[in-house]
Amino acid sequence: MAQESSQVAPRYLTGDKAGLREFLDKFDVFLFDCDGLSPVLALSAFPPRGVLWSGDLLFPGTVETLELLRNNGKQVVFVTNNSTKSRADYRKKLEGLGIPSTVEEIFSSSYSSSIYISRILQLPENKRKVYVIGETGIEQELRSENVPFIGGTDPAYRRDVTPEDYKKIAAGDESLLDPEVGVVLVGLDFHMNYLKIALAYHYIKRGAVFLATNIDSTLPNSGTLFPGAGSMSAPLIMMLNKEPVALGKPSQAMMDSIEGKFKFDRSRACMVGDRANTDIRFGLEGKLGGTLGVLTGVASKEEFVSGDYRPHAYLDKLSDLLDSE
Amino acid sequence: MAQESSQVAPRYLTGDKAGLREFLDKFDVFLFDCDGLSPVLALSAFPPRGVLWSGDLLFPGTVETLELLRNNGKQVVFVTNNSTKSRADYRKKLEGLGIPSTVEEIFSSSYSSSIYISRILQLPENKRKVYVIGETGIEQELRSENVPFIGGTDPAYRRDVTPEDYKKIAAGDESLLDPEVGVVLVGLDFHMNYLKIALAYHYIKRGAVFLATNIDSTLPNSGTLFPGAGSMSAPLIMMLNKEPVALGKPSQAMMDSIEGKFKFDRSRACMVGDRANTDIRFGLEGKLGGTLGVLTGVASKEEFVSGDYRPHAYLDKLSDLLDSE
Repeated sequence: MAQESSQVAPRYLTGDKAGLREFLDKFDVFLFDCDGLSPVLALSAFPPRGVLWSGDLLFPGTVETLELLRNNGKQVVFVTNNSTKSRADYRKKLEGLGIPSTVEEIFSSSYSSSIYISRILQLPENKRKVYVIGETGIEQELRSENVPFIGGTDPAYRRDVTPEDYKKIAAGDESLLDPEVGVVLVGLDFHMNYLKIALAYHYIKRGAVFLATNIDSTLPNSGTLFPGAGSMSAPLIMMLNKEPVALGKPSQAMMDSIEGKFKFDRSRACMVGDRANTDIRFGLEGKLGGTLGVLTGVASKEEFVSGDYRPHAYLDKLSDLLDSE
Repeated sequence: MAQESSQVAPRYLTGDKAGLREFLDKFDVFLFDCDGLSPVLALSAFPPRGVLWSGDLLFPGTVETLELLRNNGKQVVFVTNNSTKSRADYRKKLEGLGIPSTVEEIFSSSYSSSIYISRILQLPENKRKVYVIGETGIEQELRSENVPFIGGTDPAYRRDVTPEDYKKIAAGDESLLDPEVGVVLVGLDFHMNYLKIALAYHYIKRGAVFLATNIDSTLPNSGTLFPGAGSMSAPLIMMLNKEPVALGKPSQAMMDSIEGKFKFDRSRACMVGDRANTDIRFGLEGKLGGTLGVLTGVASKEEFVSGDYRPHAYLDKLSDLLDSE
């Protein structure tokens, strides 16, 4: 199955025992998209959406399918753009859904960002601090990689801007602008405010690298949409006329981080997802050996078969993989 | 001087007494750009910038020039994109700078927005309320046009988002989403937060008109730049994939509002400004009889003479108009 198979029709594998077995044999690593829509939306206007689950509802056969893969020696990786949770938080979420997992199997955009900063970015000695816009998930992952940071959930930043702030920022006062900051990392922050955006702008103008955990403009919650991490970057993108390096799907910076962590052979890895323009695209542009679409989510069969980002194969639902046995 | 003179070389009028007199005689109304940069910036890295003043520094001859125009029966209008101040606030600012003016001569983007909502938008009877993101200047001007509004400086909106909020917003709970809101008006808000953006998003998704006082991405203060009104709209633009109708320069919605207020003959009006791509463009696209550039601000002589937006005439400084006498 060549990389350019995105331009040929994907193979429909549901019920095709030999085809399923052949497909599974090609890969050692399976990356799973974990960003589905939430259940209220799913149960009202739309059918359930996701790969492994939808909202709080686990799809039947999910646990068994993951077990099958693990029993066959496959590495399973849960990939999520959610930056507000650490890997440990996310493992608890999976456990709550009934999915056994280890922290090592989880790859979130907050962790991806931390890996990128600690292992890929080459920061000068005196510019290693990160100014964070975001919640505790980012902070936990930066700590796990021993990356120093300021901002984030620090209550000192949860306040109104004052006339003094303007003058101090204009003067480059070190009580507000830490000279060791070399990176601005922007994730979803439920406490975003004017001061935080102003500081991020000035750090970047002074030379800091502009990173975003992910740039999803919206965040599903309670069956509808709310501002996502991309909405936190939006004012900065407009002010700076500059895009951040994004560490979530479909950005290849995330794939580089995953590779940096797992050291896998890309030709022996497969991305599994329900969305063509994020998940499947992520795998195709990352030149993975395979991409597998499932029809329990956003993309329709038509999108997989004749859209811009076509998976190598697709299934009605993930648990159809169980028929390979 | 025809409208298409933007494509011919502008006339340089400094020191040209006959030319100045001829130019002034063509117009009954002069619109002045009032959005200069602040003095610290002006005095450090850059020369002073503005039309009438720069920061707290009035250019010599400004008061006399305005007097000359008024004495010759010209209507003077001060045009500003600043939405945080009402016209009354702005008159005080002008007074503080030493410029005599009346509230009637002032046209701010907050007033422009109010006029647009009350006199130009045709809202259904039960959708006349405005949800405001912004400060007191907007509220004062909406009141002056008897436009009902919610949001703005109301402390009830200056709080963190709660789990209850998500559920209520998803359910369309009227305690959070007023069914009479038919317009979302976004201006500069020093107290922007997650809840305010989430509510604006949901009002617009439910059909409200998306307006912005102006979309300047930055705001000059203390000699440097801070997030401007455009930065408040940026998350919404990204989430909705939709631009607001902007009521500040160079949007023609502002020109329509000015015309709605002053009922002037556009062919007898002249826009005076220092920036080609906002001020001069505003006048050219508004098909005003004239545009006059001054070199005490952002644009260089080269930009006026051979740029994309060329004024009909230009001067070294505004007070060169005094030589017409």
